[in-house]
Order: sequence, then C-alpha cells, then structure tokens
Amino acid sequence: MSKDKGYITPSVPQGMIELLPKEQILFNKMMDTIKNTYELFGFIPLDTPVMEKAEVLLAKSGGDTEKQVYRFYKGDNELALRFDLTVPLARFVAQHHGELTFPFRRYHIGKVYRGERPQKGRFREFYQCDIDIIGNEALSIINDAEIPSIIYKTFKALGFESFTIHINNRKILNGIFECLNICNKVEVMRIVDKIDKIGQEAIKECLEEIGVDREAINILLDIITFKGSNTEIIDNIEKSGLRNPTLEEGIFELKEVINYIGSFEVPKENYVVDLKIARGLDYYTGTVYETILNDYPSIGSVCSGGRYDNLAQNYTDKKLPGVGISIGLSRLFYQLTTGNIINTDGPATPTKLLIIPMNDSMDYAMGIATKMRNAQIATEIYLNDGKIGKKMSYADKTGIPYVIVIGENEKNTGRFSLKNMLTGIQTDTDADGIISVIKSGLEE
Amino acid sequence: MSKDKGYITPSVPQGMIELLPKEQILFNKMMDTIKNTYELFGFIPLDTPVMEKAEVLLAKSGGDTEKQVYRFYKGDNELALRFDLTVPLARFVAQHHGELTFPFRRYHIGKVYRGERPQKGRFREFYQCDIDIIGNEALSIINDAEIPSIIYKTFKALGFESFTIHINNRKILNGIFECLNICNKVEVMRIVDKIDKIGQEAIKECLEEIGVDREAINILLDIITFKGSNTEIIDNIEKSGLRNPTLEEGIFELKEVINYIGSFEVPKENYVVDLKIARGLDYYTGTVYETILNDYPSIGSVCSGGRYDNLAQNYTDKKLPGVGISIGLSRLFYQLTTGNIINTDGPATPTKLLIIPMNDSMDYAMGIATKMRNAQIATEIYLNDGKIGKKMSYADKTGIPYVIVIGENEKNTGRFSLKNMLTGIQTDTDADGIISVIKSGLEE
Repeated sequence: MSKDKGYITPSVPQGMIELLPKEQILFNKMMDTIKNTYELFGFIPLDTPVMEKAEVLLAKSGGDTEKQVYRFYKGDNELALRFDLTVPLARFVAQHHGELTFPFRRYHIGKVYRGERPQKGRFREFYQCDIDIIGNEALSIINDAEIPSIIYKTFKALGFESFTIHINNRKILNGIFECLNICNKVEVMRIVDKIDKIGQEAIKECLEEIGVDREAINILLDIITFKGSNTEIIDNIEKSGLRNPTLEEGIFELKEVINYIGSFEVPKENYVVDLKIARGLDYYTGTVYETILNDYPSIGSVCSGGRYDNLAQNYTDKKLPGVGISIGLSRLFYQLTTGNIINTDGPATPTKLLIIPMNDSMDYAMGIATKMRNAQIATEIYLNDGKIGKKMSYADKTGIPYVIVIGENEKNTGRFSLKNMLTGIQTDTDADGIISVIKSGLEE
Repeated sequence: MSKDKGYITPSVPQGMIELLPKEQILFNKMMDTIKNTYELFGFIPLDTPVMEKAEVLLAKSGGDTEKQVYRFYKGDNELALRFDLTVPLARFVAQHHGELTFPFRRYHIGKVYRGERPQKGRFREFYQCDIDIIGNEALSIINDAEIPSIIYKTFKALGFESFTIHINNRKILNGIFECLNICNKVEVMRIVDKIDKIGQEAIKECLEEIGVDREAINILLDIITFKGSNTEIIDNIEKSGLRNPTLEEGIFELKEVINYIGSFEVPKENYVVDLKIARGLDYYTGTVYETILNDYPSIGSVCSGGRYDNLAQNYTDKKLPGVGISIGLSRLFYQLTTGNIINTDGPATPTKLLIIPMNDSMDYAMGIATKMRNAQIATEIYLNDGKIGKKMSYADKTGIPYVIVIGENEKNTGRFSLKNMLTGIQTDTDADGIISVIKSGLEE
C-alpha cells in the first residue's frame, strides 16, 4: 500500500507495456493487417495456452532462454509461460499429429513472455506474429522461396516502401566451416552473425580468440562479405574452390530460393543474398531470413526466420521439417512510434458517429442510434446529463469524426446538421443521408 | 520424460483448452462478431498485460478468487495472472485517469486465469469478452438501459434466436432486506441468487439456517417470485407496503431501465424483470443482468454483468461509477459445440483456393497464386512433390472450397477447370473468371 491515503499505487509490473486507446487502435490495425496477409497466403489460425507444463516447454531450451522463463508452481504442477510460439507449435503438432493435414500451414499471433533485463524497446510481455509451414517427413525447398513473398506482401500492406529481405543458407556457412576445418561451428556462427553490428575487424579478433586460424578467417570473410549481384555472390563461393557436400547442398538450395522468389513477383530491390546472416538460434538448419527497413537499419531485423530440419524432435519420432518467420510486433510498434516513423495521429476511436441528445429527445435519439447501428455505423449516444458545451467538448476529445445534436427541431423534422469534426463542415440531411455520407467517408 | 524412447509426452497443463483448426476458425468467427458488435456501440479497444503486480491485482479480492489466482515470484517481483478483466480495468482507469475521456467506453477481449477445480466446461485459461462504461463522478442510469440493447445485438449477431435478458436492481433486494430487518445482506443475497438452481424450499431452509425470520422469508419470496408483466412485478413490490429510500431508488432505476430499453428497440420477448437474480459478486450495487438461452437454460447465464458505484476505490479517491457485462466465450463455445447447439461443420480453413501445379508449371502457378492474392483471394499453392492422387486428397482433407490444377495445357491456354469441392461442379474459365466466381461465392 502506498503511504498516502491507503491507496495502492496503480501500475504495471516492470517491463510490461500497455497502450492508450489511440495507440491501441493503431496497434490493432497493424495486427489485423498482418493477420489478413497471413490468411491471404493460405495459413490457418492457431491459439495455444500461454502456460505450458515446464518439462514440456523447457525440453530443449537452455542458456539465456531458460533464465528468462517465467516458471512457477500451481499446486503440484510446475508451469512455465511460453517464451516464443515455436515450441508450443512443436508440442501442438506432435500432440495432434494424426488430426492435422500436412503440409500444416499455421499462423499464430499471441503474447509471449521473457523476463529480460528492462531496456528501451524490450518488453517482458510482447506480441509475436508467426507463420510456419510444417511438412510430414519432407518439405520442398520451394516453400523457402514462398516465405519472402509473404514478408514482402506483409510489409507492403503495413505501408512500408523501402525494405530488404536478407537471405542466406546455413549449410553454406557450415560447409565453409567444414572446408576450413573450423570445428566449433555453433560458436563461430554466433560470432559471424554479429558482423554487421560490430564490424569485420572485431569479428576477426573474436574468431582468433577462440582459436580459428587467421588464414581461414580471411577466406571466410572474403566469401561472406563479397559484393555483387545475388548470382555473383553465389558464383563467388564456387570460385573460391571450397567444396564439400554440405556447401553444395546449401548453394543448390539458395539458388532454388532465389530462382523461385522472382516467380512470386517479389521485386529485385526487396531481397538480397547475404552470406553474413546466420541467426543466433541453433535450430535453423538451412535457409535463414532477416528483414531490414532500409531507412532505419538501426532497428535491426523486423522479421526473421528460417528453415529447421526437425521441429518436434523432443516430443515425437516423426520427422517434421519446417520453415517459418516471426514479427516481434510490440517491439516494432515501439520503434515505429517512438521514432516517429509512423504517424500516431489517427482516430482515437473506431466510433464514427456521436449522437448528442438534448433534454426531451432522448427516446428519439436512441431510435436514430439504433438505425445507425443497424446500418453498420459505429455509433455512440451521449447518455449523460450536462450542458451542451460539456457535450460538445466531449465530441472534440473523443475524436469521433461525425457528430449530430438532436433536439426538439430535429425530432420534429427528421433532419439533422451532420458535423464533420475534422473539416468543421456541416451537412443538412436526414437519417439515410447521414448513413450515406459516413459510408462514403469510410470507403475513402 | 516419458519412459519410452526418451520423448517428452506432448500435452497441455490440466484444465487448459486448445482447439483444432476447424473449431479455432469457428471460435475466431464468434470472437470477431462480438468485437464488431461492441465497436458498433461505440466502445474502444483495450489490452492490458496478462500479469499484474500481486499487490495491485489482489488489493480487493478475497475468498475463492484469492485461492484460484496464479501467483508467483519472478526475481523480487510478486506477480499474479489476472482472473478477470475488471480489476485490470480499474487499475488502468485509475493509472491513466488524466489521459482518458469520460464516460470511458472500453471493450476488452482477452484471456484470464483461474486455478479452478477441473470440471466439464470449466477452464483454467479462458477468454472473456467485456464491455464497461465508466463515468467520472457520475454515470446516468440510461447507460444501464443501453447495455441490454448491446447484449441483444450481440447474441442476434451470433445467430441466437431465443434468449432472454433477465434484469434486476440490487437496491430492490437490499431495500427489501432492510425493511425486513435482514442484517447479513451479502450472505442472503448469495443464497437468493441460487433460487433458480436449488428451488424455493431449499432457499427457505438455507435462510432459516442463517437465522432469517420465517415471516420475513415468506414476504421476500412472495415478492421476488411474483409472476406477471414487467410493470406488474414492479407494482407488486410497491403493493407489498414495504418502503424505504434504498428500495424506492431501486424501483425508480429499474423503471427507468425498462422504460428506455424499448427505445433501443429491444423486442419485449428478449428481456424480463427478474427480482430473483442478484449475481454472486459483491461489487454490484444497482442494475444486474443475466442472459439465458431459452432452449438451453441448463447452460446458465451466457452474458452477465451490472452496475457498480465505484470501480477503482482501491487505487484512487476519484469516484468512478460504471456498468458492464462479460461473455465467458471459452465456456460458451464449449457448451455450444459439445451440446451440438452450433454446427462445427464449417470450413476447416479460411483459404478459398488451392492451386495444384504439375511438374513443369510451377513458375506459372506461382504467378497465378500471386494474381489471386493481389485480388484478396486467400490462396494456397501446393508446393510439395508427389503424385496427383496425393495432391487431390490433400485438397479434400484441407476443406479448401475451390481447386485448380495447373499443367502444360493450362499454362499454354490460360484457361482452368475451377472445381467447387462442395458441389463437385467444374467451371472452365480464365484467371479473372476464377476471381469473380470465388468473390461472388464469398458474398453469399
């Protein structure tokens, strides 16, 4: 209890975010756009419990994730809050394998939880918007080529003009490592992944520190930092003379992906082969993606993902290869709004019409409100007493775009002065006129 | 780990529910219908963290709720998962009071958590769909009359024909208690609330057990079980000769509500004055609502709520009266599906068109898929290898309503045989023809 007056200070836990109506409406709009685009590409919705059995959720993970997980007992049950949407998907597909049709294309938009150190733009509860395509035993590489077209459509639909999807294949990096006798692959992969953040020289030092031969480092960096067209970058790997099955498989897959992306009509300027990206997560085994907003590279990747060989290996002996991506919407939204990258001056409400009844016209006003709602126009009727001035200032504050005042005169004539609160223009019309004016406004 | 093969058995925690795609799509449809209806009545969206500080969330509650709460430490922070959407609303309104416009009309559709004893149709994670209207210092009783019109519209939109909104005012019950010198009001209120479940005789016994005078019990039951029209029921209270300020205030408010409901065009058969309902929860102070599906009364109330004098008294000295309702969607959905009250044989996917490419027409098929998606038709392209038979059986299993196969011939002519998987009818048409056929199908 706070000392003063015995009231408990209302606040949310550290690291949690919540939005005021104006931002919430914008956030929901982005979420709907993502949902609709995902459905446009033939994905079906999934919703799993936020809580999982701890032993199930933490079957695989370790390290940082493990530390960040919200984990607790309720009675005898040890529970944990999901830290991503992929592990619950793995559990779901293994559990319901016989009831699903493969390839299983699902989208999932939901909250996940990580007890991260509080910092700008990092939240302990945040939304992820995921799609994954899960194959039964096998999944064609062409699926890896469709993913960038989904990323492209999604970010176009979100209103972004200039962004680039960076594409790589981990088999290429692993293949190169093998050719160069680099043994601690995972570690090297993680270091290489940092190259755009910390630069080549720093990478060299890190790699030398963990004992990678200088010669090898130079060959590696020459290949992955080579500048050229997508085809040139890939050809350059082959030119390097390095060869082994892993590398060749990676090159073949990357060529397939690049080849088919065009058929999905993703413009050339929106994707690029980038041998430098690896994605930190261990479970990617082939294609990997990152998406950069070209005008705001500092934000980092706004949509990432990749291919994994075996989604549910902790839960079943069935081989379930998959490919997927994730958008961390809460973080993206925070970056876009605090960076003034998107305009938050949208409507503060989805309501379109405010009806202000004067003293004796309440009944009549309710009838008009009902007529508007039956016409699918989101309508609020101001039901509280008070002077007209107070009522009009309410109209201003709510940001409802259209207002009518209903008094004796309107009641008797059935005609209203429909005020557009943005332009100030008033239109004299009847109920049907109001409907058509607002509907036409909605179409714009 | 499960003994066999070292795999962890994939399962969800006890009392948790998750849906398969077919049900999920139906569930989402109901959720969207509720959301759209709430917005139609001028409510704005709110989304708060699932986790609250324990001291904030549990400031008021006690008894059963307290026991059911998921409560745990993360580091030094004691957290708790919300058990309803009202307490977070109270916290939110108190915290952001200066940034909100009143009356504050918000809707919130989200998951809440209660560690209830597992039983049929009771879940430990479930969706609530709430609306509340919060006034600053005061809130007109007319708001209480608008609520039933929202319930009416919502359940009509959900496809229900026969349901009744039961309306009462707690001041009437409290007033009667006072007149009859019944002191332990809360306790009596809870017992009376059970009357439709356990019957009059049982109620009499319960009330006698806690020492209520038999004479008083008879008068009370005569009044609250009186049969008649809404007006007759209210008049009968006055006829009883009981009088005190609380009772009169209750009667006045109930009359106002009943009087204005008509103006919101709620049909007479869809609402009724029912002096027997009290709602268990303590915080209701005036109007209370319950909604019964007349053909399935055993389900109990599917939408309940009421008026409260002071939403956020634990967090602020500001007086915030409000009125609201809640739909427990997960439970309702479970009852409707397991009771075969709603048909779950809808589409198993939001996808409208499946494109099956034959060997050498993949590129071309991708172009067609992109054209369809650009026309806002949810399209999946079958990207895996396999015999045509396997591909067609996939088409059957997914439940995608339209299918085209693209081979050499289609590629050369630009004409396709569009198969309606429900009717089996095939239409010979071009790409634009496919779009118009499916679009016209969508309008139906």
